[in-house]
Amino acid sequence: MPAPHRTSLHLADVQIADEFWSPRRETVRTRTIPHQEARLREGGQFEALLLKPRSHDDDDRERVPIFWESDVAKWIEAASYVLATTDDPELDAAVDKAIELLAGAQQQDGYLNNYFTAVKPGKRFTDLRDAHELYCAGHLIEAGVAHYEATGKTTLLDIVRRYADLIWLEFSPGGPCEGGYDGHQEVELALVKLYRATGERRYLDLSLLLTDNRGKAPFYFDAEAERRGDTGYFGGEWSPGGVYVRSGQRDREYNQSHAPVREQDKAVGHAVRAMYQYSAMADLALELGDQGLREACERLWDDLVTTKLYVTGGIGADPSIEGFGKPYDLPDHTGYAETCAAIGLVFWAHRMMILTGDAKYVDVLERALYNGVLSGASADGTKYFYGNPLASDGTVERSDWFDCACCPPNLARLLTSLEQYVYVADTEGLWVNLYVTGSARFAHGGQRVTVAQESGYPWDGAIAFEITEAEAPLPMTLRLRLPDWATGAAVVTVNGKVLPYTTDKGYAVLDRTWARGDRVELTLPMAPTLVRADPRVTSTAGKVAVQRGPIVHCVEEVDNAAPVPRLVIARSGELRTEHADGQDAIIAEGLVDGPPSDGLYATEPVSAEPTAIRTVPYYAWANRGKGTMAVWVRETP
Amino acid sequence: MPAPHRTSLHLADVQIADEFWSPRRETVRTRTIPHQEARLREGGQFEALLLKPRSHDDDDRERVPIFWESDVAKWIEAASYVLATTDDPELDAAVDKAIELLAGAQQQDGYLNNYFTAVKPGKRFTDLRDAHELYCAGHLIEAGVAHYEATGKTTLLDIVRRYADLIWLEFSPGGPCEGGYDGHQEVELALVKLYRATGERRYLDLSLLLTDNRGKAPFYFDAEAERRGDTGYFGGEWSPGGVYVRSGQRDREYNQSHAPVREQDKAVGHAVRAMYQYSAMADLALELGDQGLREACERLWDDLVTTKLYVTGGIGADPSIEGFGKPYDLPDHTGYAETCAAIGLVFWAHRMMILTGDAKYVDVLERALYNGVLSGASADGTKYFYGNPLASDGTVERSDWFDCACCPPNLARLLTSLEQYVYVADTEGLWVNLYVTGSARFAHGGQRVTVAQESGYPWDGAIAFEITEAEAPLPMTLRLRLPDWATGAAVVTVNGKVLPYTTDKGYAVLDRTWARGDRVELTLPMAPTLVRADPRVTSTAGKVAVQRGPIVHCVEEVDNAAPVPRLVIARSGELRTEHADGQDAIIAEGLVDGPPSDGLYATEPVSAEPTAIRTVPYYAWANRGKGTMAVWVRETP
Repeated sequence: MPAPHRTSLHLADVQIADEFWSPRRETVRTRTIPHQEARLREGGQFEALLLKPRSHDDDDRERVPIFWESDVAKWIEAASYVLATTDDPELDAAVDKAIELLAGAQQQDGYLNNYFTAVKPGKRFTDLRDAHELYCAGHLIEAGVAHYEATGKTTLLDIVRRYADLIWLEFSPGGPCEGGYDGHQEVELALVKLYRATGERRYLDLSLLLTDNRGKAPFYFDAEAERRGDTGYFGGEWSPGGVYVRSGQRDREYNQSHAPVREQDKAVGHAVRAMYQYSAMADLALELGDQGLREACERLWDDLVTTKLYVTGGIGADPSIEGFGKPYDLPDHTGYAETCAAIGLVFWAHRMMILTGDAKYVDVLERALYNGVLSGASADGTKYFYGNPLASDGTVERSDWFDCACCPPNLARLLTSLEQYVYVADTEGLWVNLYVTGSARFAHGGQRVTVAQESGYPWDGAIAFEITEAEAPLPMTLRLRLPDWATGAAVVTVNGKVLPYTTDKGYAVLDRTWARGDRVELTLPMAPTLVRADPRVTSTAGKVAVQRGPIVHCVEEVDNAAPVPRLVIARSGELRTEHADGQDAIIAEGLVDGPPSDGLYATEPVSAEPTAIRTVPYYAWANRGKGTMAVWVRETP
Repeated sequence: MPAPHRTSLHLADVQIADEFWSPRRETVRTRTIPHQEARLREGGQFEALLLKPRSHDDDDRERVPIFWESDVAKWIEAASYVLATTDDPELDAAVDKAIELLAGAQQQDGYLNNYFTAVKPGKRFTDLRDAHELYCAGHLIEAGVAHYEATGKTTLLDIVRRYADLIWLEFSPGGPCEGGYDGHQEVELALVKLYRATGERRYLDLSLLLTDNRGKAPFYFDAEAERRGDTGYFGGEWSPGGVYVRSGQRDREYNQSHAPVREQDKAVGHAVRAMYQYSAMADLALELGDQGLREACERLWDDLVTTKLYVTGGIGADPSIEGFGKPYDLPDHTGYAETCAAIGLVFWAHRMMILTGDAKYVDVLERALYNGVLSGASADGTKYFYGNPLASDGTVERSDWFDCACCPPNLARLLTSLEQYVYVADTEGLWVNLYVTGSARFAHGGQRVTVAQESGYPWDGAIAFEITEAEAPLPMTLRLRLPDWATGAAVVTVNGKVLPYTTDKGYAVLDRTWARGDRVELTLPMAPTLVRADPRVTSTAGKVAVQRGPIVHCVEEVDNAAPVPRLVIARSGELRTEHADGQDAIIAEGLVDGPPSDGLYATEPVSAEPTAIRTVPYYAWANRGKGTMAVWVRETP
């Protein structure tokens, strides 16, 4: 039996009112979400739900609405999170309209997927591997739960329950899809959410069933392909969704169906699929106390963070599969690091923290959140990176939208639900995972408690907490995460006096009886540092990255004396921080190679002049036109 | 009127009997040429000449015999060069058979191209831009001239003369192709060879006509495409030959038809096309004393060697066009550097030396020949690189053959005609361009003269010359090239006494009256050196290449303690040469990054251990399995 466990607070119980995230979340509300709604309208995603019959036209591959419900669903989910904390009747009405479309598209028996209803009728659940059917179902379920929890309305929740009930019939023992599972994981974690929102155990069972079916021999996808008469799996071909499907083992690894999930120990294949699968595994391990799933998650985590994680928190270095490359193969120019994959890593890391109570997972969550996730959108919130390379030769820029529009709404739903990542509560008290000005309200020992948090984070390491609501003396453990970059150097005071604290799994543990007005101050060291990668990462050999607090910096040509590859940071030089226009710049002492030689090649060493090298946060790059950029810059030995 | 000019010696008058080239040339004769003949037989290139009617099948693009005559022609040309210096009756017979096939394929009016005879009858000379028709004609002409000069037989020469006569009718004023020119340059330089072999002035005129038609507005290729009803030129599409054709200016630059050739001043577009065009321009400048063409060549040369030349002599960095990238854009991993392009650079450089008497062209010729050309074939002569990148992540290896089989026979014809690049003669005497043990026989001042050359070049810089044949006192200028890497440090002795020599355009000028038995010794400094690139070449920032004499080295993983990116060469360390198994290795003092860190990222500098870094000549890489490789290696400042 699982012990009473840690949970995130409800969105409405967390206030975010800081200078870093609040303006970005407001941008998402006022610009990104309307922009995305317009794009979904133009793109046909809404119209497709009217289910006008159409034939499948191979020459117009991008227009085949094969996973369009997921775009709509993620947009509804993001909008719902906004509605959970903000009064926005116009948005509320827009969401209701979208839900009406979904209601109209749902079939008598609960089925809801316009591709298999209007384009390929009679073929439902025959191409689980590539057709993204359960993936769409999962996003619809997540949207239904978010909408219900935000608004109390059950309009979408009812729709997705009926659909989930149908899926249960299809996949349960004796059903037509017995032994099957999805080619793009997503529904498994969604079903756990649905179980939590409804208490209906069948959804949890279905999630476990799909999870444990995965990767068992004989392989379901082989049998399914044979039933379809599809031989492309073995020769490699474009699927209707525009995904290139390969043959054999690498194909199976692509969607993590190469082995039963409990036996997997290497992060392989498509990175988003992996993150969603691992997230579901962590959820199930928590809900069921399932030690086998937990240990598999821990093995996969270790493999990922020790061999396949960019310093920005990006993952999935290989563009050819939108997924993991070989260990230590983390190229900077060509690295993929899809925005959605970094978002998926946030999802998984959060669940791992809840499962284990270990801050090391939040260290990675924070690395991804402030860097590889945030870089996915432009400063004005309307242009996007699908991939987030760590270096540019000057040709890379964000796009307005994508035919495969997974990343923009994914980013929106993460930022609009950021509340859930800041605090975690359990019977002992409050865990502070992220440092974000605002407050947390929760129940503890029968009391209503509010803790206010205030700081200039991520630019300033001085963070204050105050118990602003507590009716009686309050025995409670307050845990403050000590980021990995702050290890051993964080100082805690309570009511002005330095408190020698104990630490546990990366948290400062403050276990005492609190009273209203008690004030805790945490000071994290914020000196900029140079970071080096393991020498087995060949692309970063001889190079450093600049980091201050959780922010990984990069060097852009526009701020510097020469194209970025000509700059060298002095190993022992001073790193000076300059804060302006809402963000840090770090000024490093260094050299610039030059001047140009007489000819192209010479035997003399290239001369170098001293120069100041200016950085910006990586997330902020590519907002001032095109130019060379690099996170990793050469250093003098 | 042009002055009496420098010429290469006839192949049969030059003996090559050294330890570097002779075994390679023997490999070409005994392995490469038979291997290529077998591949042309399997590939259908010979069979296609039987002209069995066949329809053009777009789905079998590679099998459309659109430039197959050029494969056959280059094979005949290479074989002919062998026959010029070697008695090989079997090869002689094989060539005769191939010529019979060509004779049978030639049409009544002289036309000879199986694609437009058997696959697309009635369409000849309607797709000059992409169909490689005149390109094939050029290779046939080169083969015909080579075969005639080697064997005295006119079987193929007669065929190509009839074809050239037809082309003259087509392209001369009033002809159906008036104003036209070829989409892949080649026939222009071939026509100059045909003029020299036959004395027929019309061929030289035709070469000049095609050269000067090129790039004039209104653009012939636009009008031609319109006549074909082909709109692909403007939208971009695959041509039948498998070449992607782009739109607008970049398309025109692709085949150097963006401007009249006399106005061109930047090396742009497809590199092989460029080299063949520039070679023809140099030929015409020489034959006609045409100052405008000479100056264009000099401008284009300067642009190429100061901004677009790899240290290996490779050119054409951009794989997407098999051609030139932007200035200083010389990536190492992804660099294309097609074998044929480096060979084309040898052709052009040789002609520029003959035109100008300047050794700087031979410096580049030698750089390409010993490095970026030679790397194109495996040590056993039967595996090939089409592209020659300067670094490998461990996945690059040579191929057995290519569907577009231009490079292997091109390499064969270069090595089998190497004689022409070693010496040049003029009325003043002999110019020694390359240091290759053997001899040169030529007429001077009415005498027959033979100069013997002996050295262990490129491994040893001590080169001896002896006048082994001279009937009377011989007033003659002997010019010895002083390679750019030897500037100011070369020593010359005559009959054992140091001779203070004058230099002119990179040559030591020895002007005296010689007698039989006179002995000249040239000593070139052969200390290994570190080479750096202009800092504007961003891919080589902070890196060095190792060079000794003309040989550019590389570092392969198989010889070293770690994958190549983890190695660092000490800037002021000793470079020790070890000669074994017929080639140098350089052992450099350096460091190896490591050992691995605890986690993926750390703030501590990566520790480094001293190590010896072992190099091999770049041309010799990829003969011992797969592994990381780099020409450019980090150096300690």
